[in-house]
Amino acid sequence: MVWNDVIRAVYPGRFQPVHLGHIEVIKWALDKVDELIVAVGTAQESHTVVNPFTAGERVVMLRLAMEEFGLDMRRIYIIPVPDILMNSVWVSYLQLYVPKFRYGVARNPLVVRLFKEAGYEVLTPPPYERDRYSSTKIRRMMLAGDPSWRKLVPSSVARFIDEVDGERRLREVLGSD
Amino acid sequence: MVWNDVIRAVYPGRFQPVHLGHIEVIKWALDKVDELIVAVGTAQESHTVVNPFTAGERVVMLRLAMEEFGLDMRRIYIIPVPDILMNSVWVSYLQLYVPKFRYGVARNPLVVRLFKEAGYEVLTPPPYERDRYSSTKIRRMMLAGDPSWRKLVPSSVARFIDEVDGERRLREVLGSD
Amino acid sequence: MVWNDVIRAVYPGRFQPVHLGHIEVIKWALDKVDELIVAVGTAQESHTVVNPFTAGERVVMLRLAMEEFGLDMRRIYIIPVPDILMNSVWVSYLQLYVPKFRYGVARNPLVVRLFKEAGYEVLTPPPYERDRYSSTKIRRMMLAGDPSWRKLVPSSVARFIDEVDGERRLREVLGSD
Amino acid sequence: MVWNDVIRAVYPGRFQPVHLGHIEVIKWALDKVDELIVAVGTAQESHTVVNPFTAGERVVMLRLAMEEFGLDMRRIYIIPVPDILMNSVWVSYLQLYVPKFRYGVARNPLVVRLFKEAGYEVLTPPPYERDRYSSTKIRRMMLAGDPSWRKLVPSSVARFIDEVDGERRLREVLGSD
Amino acid sequence: MVWNDVIRAVYPGRFQPVHLGHIEVIKWALDKVDELIVAVGTAQESHTVVNPFTAGERVVMLRLAMEEFGLDMRRIYIIPVPDILMNSVWVSYLQLYVPKFRYGVARNPLVVRLFKEAGYEVLTPPPYERDRYSSTKIRRMMLAGDPSWRKLVPSSVARFIDEVDGERRLREVLGSD
Amino acid sequence: MVWNDVIRAVYPGRFQPVHLGHIEVIKWALDKVDELIVAVGTAQESHTVVNPFTAGERVVMLRLAMEEFGLDMRRIYIIPVPDILMNSVWVSYLQLYVPKFRYGVARNPLVVRLFKEAGYEVLTPPPYERDRYSSTKIRRMMLAGDPSWRKLVPSSVARFIDEVDGERRLREVLGSD
Repeated sequence: MVWNDVIRAVYPGRFQPVHLGHIEVIKWALDKVDELIVAVGTAQESHTVVNPFTAGERVVMLRLAMEEFGLDMRRIYIIPVPDILMNSVWVSYLQLYVPKFRYGVARNPLVVRLFKEAGYEVLTPPPYERDRYSSTKIRRMMLAGDPSWRKLVPSSVARFIDEVDGERRLREVLGSD
Repeated sequence: MVWNDVIRAVYPGRFQPVHLGHIEVIKWALDKVDELIVAVGTAQESHTVVNPFTAGERVVMLRLAMEEFGLDMRRIYIIPVPDILMNSVWVSYLQLYVPKFRYGVARNPLVVRLFKEAGYEVLTPPPYERDRYSSTKIRRMMLAGDPSWRKLVPSSVARFIDEVDGERRLREVLGSD
Repeated sequence: MVWNDVIRAVYPGRFQPVHLGHIEVIKWALDKVDELIVAVGTAQESHTVVNPFTAGERVVMLRLAMEEFGLDMRRIYIIPVPDILMNSVWVSYLQLYVPKFRYGVARNPLVVRLFKEAGYEVLTPPPYERDRYSSTKIRRMMLAGDPSWRKLVPSSVARFIDEVDGERRLREVLGSD
Repeated sequence: MVWNDVIRAVYPGRFQPVHLGHIEVIKWALDKVDELIVAVGTAQESHTVVNPFTAGERVVMLRLAMEEFGLDMRRIYIIPVPDILMNSVWVSYLQLYVPKFRYGVARNPLVVRLFKEAGYEVLTPPPYERDRYSSTKIRRMMLAGDPSWRKLVPSSVARFIDEVDGERRLREVLGSD
Repeated sequence: MVWNDVIRAVYPGRFQPVHLGHIEVIKWALDKVDELIVAVGTAQESHTVVNPFTAGERVVMLRLAMEEFGLDMRRIYIIPVPDILMNSVWVSYLQLYVPKFRYGVARNPLVVRLFKEAGYEVLTPPPYERDRYSSTKIRRMMLAGDPSWRKLVPSSVARFIDEVDGERRLREVLGSD
Repeated sequence: MVWNDVIRAVYPGRFQPVHLGHIEVIKWALDKVDELIVAVGTAQESHTVVNPFTAGERVVMLRLAMEEFGLDMRRIYIIPVPDILMNSVWVSYLQLYVPKFRYGVARNPLVVRLFKEAGYEVLTPPPYERDRYSSTKIRRMMLAGDPSWRKLVPSSVARFIDEVDGERRLREVLGSD
C-alpha cells in the first residue's frame, strides 16, 4: 500500500500572478510533506482585474518558477480547480480534483476553517513579508506602470508576463470596468 | 520569446482508467513535440459506471504510469478539465485551462473536427490495438471479476486501482443503476 | 449543548411518488434515532417520466402520508435538495441543506458507499417488499391506467395524486418523448 | 398602448434542421396572430447527433426559408433560447427571452401542458404530414447519404446545409459516439 | 378536493439569522392563512459575511424559534430554496420547490413586484420595528462582539448560534475578505 | 456559396435601455458590412438596477427603434445571448448563438481585446457623444424622475418604456437593494 502512505498537503491559491511569497510557502511545505499539491483556484476566470491570467498561464508560471528555484517537480502536482461558489462544499469538491491529501496549507481564516470543518489538519506557513509579496499589490503596480513589480516575482515569471504582454492586458481589462 | 516558441500538443481523454494504449499515444506524441499536455476530461464526474475514478485519481494514475515508463515529467503537463456541455465552445474552453498549444492529439472524429474548426492542426496517433486497449473493455472486465484487465494497464496503475479498491467501487456504482 | 446531542439520520430518496415502502422505512428509522431528515432528491426536476412531480408536491405527499400514519412531525424534517451531478461531492452538499446528522439511511450500494466515504455510518432498512413497493412500477401502472397503484401508496397520497391529475400528467409527459 | 395590443404567439422548436413542415406551421400561425416569435430551443447545443447545428445556423436557416417563402420578416421574431432543464419553470424562462405573447403554438403534449399550466392558450397547428416532415428522419437520411432529405427542406436550407457541409458534420459527430 | 382548498402563503427570506421580527411576521401571516410556507432563500450559500449559516442551520433556527413560540408546526412548511439568479423567473422557480400557494408575504418592493407580475396577491406585514430587528445589524453586532444581538433573536436561536460558535465563524469569514 | 460570402459584423451590448447612441453605431456599422448582428448581452438578467429590462423587452426596443429610423430589417439580426462568465471563452460562445461573422463592433477595450485574441478584426465606431448617450445616465435619470431621458432614446423606445412602466420598475428594483 505504498501510494496511500505518501503524505501530501494541498496549497490552494489564485496565483494572479505567482510571486516570491508563494515560492517561499511552497519550499516551506515541501520540507514538511512528501508531496505538495498546488491548487490553482478560480480556474474558470481570466481577463478581469482580480484574475487577469488564465488557469493555463498560471500553471505555466508555477512551473517556470519551480524550475527556476530548482524544486523537484516529481514531488509537486499543479492542478487548476474552478470555483464551486458553495463554501461549505469547497473542500469536498477540492478532493475530487486532486490526489488524496492529509493537510491543507493556508493562512486565510476562512480557508483554515473550511479545512478544519472537513476534518483536515492545517499547516500554517509563516507570513513571509505578506505586505510586500501580495498579488493585489503587484497587479496595482502593473496597472500603474511601476516596473518594481518585477522584483517581487521570480524572474522567469516576470519574463513570462512580458511575453504574454500582461501589463497591457491588465490595463485593457481595467478600461472596461 | 523563448516560452512562446516551445511546441506543445494537447491530448484530451477521460482515462477511466489509464491503459497501455494511452501510454503508447503519449510516447508517440512526445516524439513529435517539445511538451505534451494531457487533459483529463469530464473531471467533475466520478463514481459512475463510465467514470468510476475521480479526476485526482486519474491524475495519479497518469503520473504513476509516466514514472513507470520513464517519461520525462518536465515535458508533460497533466491537467483536469471539467465538461462544458457545449461542443462548439469546447476547444476555446480547453485553452483556458491549459498552456498555449499548437496541436490537438485525437482520433475521435468529433474531437478532430472541433480542433480543426478552432483552427488547430491535429496529430492523429496510430490505433495501437484499440480493440484490446479500451477503457470500456477494462471496466467491463473489472465488473465481471476478470483479472486479465491488469495486463492491459501499466502495473503501477493496476496496483493503484487495487489500493483504492477500484473493482469493488465499480460494482457498487453499477448496483445503483 | 442540547441541540448538538440530538441524534439524527438523513433518508434521501426521490419519492416519485411516495409509497408504502417509504413509510415503512421512515417508521423504522424513527425507532432508531431522535429525529429523521427526509431529503427529497432531484428537487429541480418535474414533468418527466421518471420525475413527474415537483419537489413541492413531493413534500406535500410526504406530509400527508405522515399525518395519515400518525407520525410525529416534530421529529421529522422534509427538505428538498436539487442535484449536484458530482457523486463524490454529494454528501458534503447534502450537509449544506439539512440539519447536522449522524447516520445515512440507504440500501442503494452507491449511496451507502458515498455516505461511508464521507465518514458516516449507514442504517440499512429491511427491504419491505421492494418488488411490490417501487415508484418505477407505480409510475408504469399509472401510465397503463392500472388503478391498482392506489393500493401501493398511502390513501392520502392517492387522493392528492388524483387532485393534481397525476395520471394524466404522466401520460402527457410520456407523449412528448 | 399600441405595442401591448399586438397579438403574438410563440412557436418553440429545435429546428435541427428547418423543414417544410415547420414552414407550414409558421404560415398557419401567421394567419392567426399579428406577430410570431420562433423560439430556437436547446440553443446551447451543437455538434451532436440530435443537435448538429448551432443556434446561429438555425437562425440563418429560418431566415433563409422565410425569405424563400416570401414571409413578412417584420411580423416575425427569431430568438435562440438555451435549455433550463426544469420543465415547470420553462415557460417563465421563455418569457424572459422573447417579447410578450398571448399564445403558445405546440402539438407536443408536454409543451401544450406547460403552456396551459402557465396560463397560456395554445394554438395547435394541423399535423402537416408529420411522418414525412420530421427532423429526426431528415438527420437519418443525411447520415445514410440518402439525398432525398433535400426535398423535405426549403431549397435555400438545403443549399445552406451543403455550404456548411452538414452531412459530413453529422457523420463525424456520429463517429464519436 | 380538500387539499387544493387549503389557503397558503409563502414567506421568502434569508434568515441570516432568524430574529424576532421574522417571528412577528410568521405569527401575523398564520392569522391570515391556513398554512404558511417559510422559504429559506440563497440556500446554497454559507460561510460568507452576508450568509454565514447553512440552509440546514437556518431550517433548525426556524424550527427552534417556532417551538419556543408555540407555533403549530402542522400549519408550517420550512423549505430551503437555492438562488436562480434570474429575477423574472424566480417566482416560477419558487413554485417548483414549495406546495401550491395563493399569497406571497413580502415588504421588499422587488419581491412584491415579482409576485404581482407572476399573478399572485401579496400580503404585506407591518414593519415590526424593522430598524431594530435586522439581520444585517445583528451580524454587525456579532462581528463587533456586542452581546446585545442576543436580545434581538429568540433565546433558542441565540443558544443554537452559540452551539455552532456563530460569532467566531463570522469573524473568520470576515477575516478572509 | 453565396451565403458564406455575405460580410457580417456582430455588435454586442446590453441595451439597458436602447438609446440614440446605439442607433448611431448601428447605422454606422450598416454602412461598413452587408449584415449586422446585434447581440443582446446578459440576456438572463432583468429586474436589477443595471439590467432592468428583460432580453425580450430589449429585443422589442431594438426592433421599434430600427423601424422608427427606417433601417432595413432584412440586413439585421437581433439575438439575445446569456452570460458565460468566462471572458476568454466568450467570443467562441458568441459564435454559437449568432450567424457567422467577420468583424466585431466594439469600443470597450476588453471586448476589443477578446475579439482580437479570437482572431477577429474589430470595427471601432466613433464615440457619438458617449457622455450624453449612456444607458447608465439614462437609468439614473429614470430613477431620479428626470423626464429628460426621453430625449436620449428613440421616441418609440420612450413610448415602449412607458407602456411597461419602466420608471416604476426601476424604482422598485432599487428599493430592494
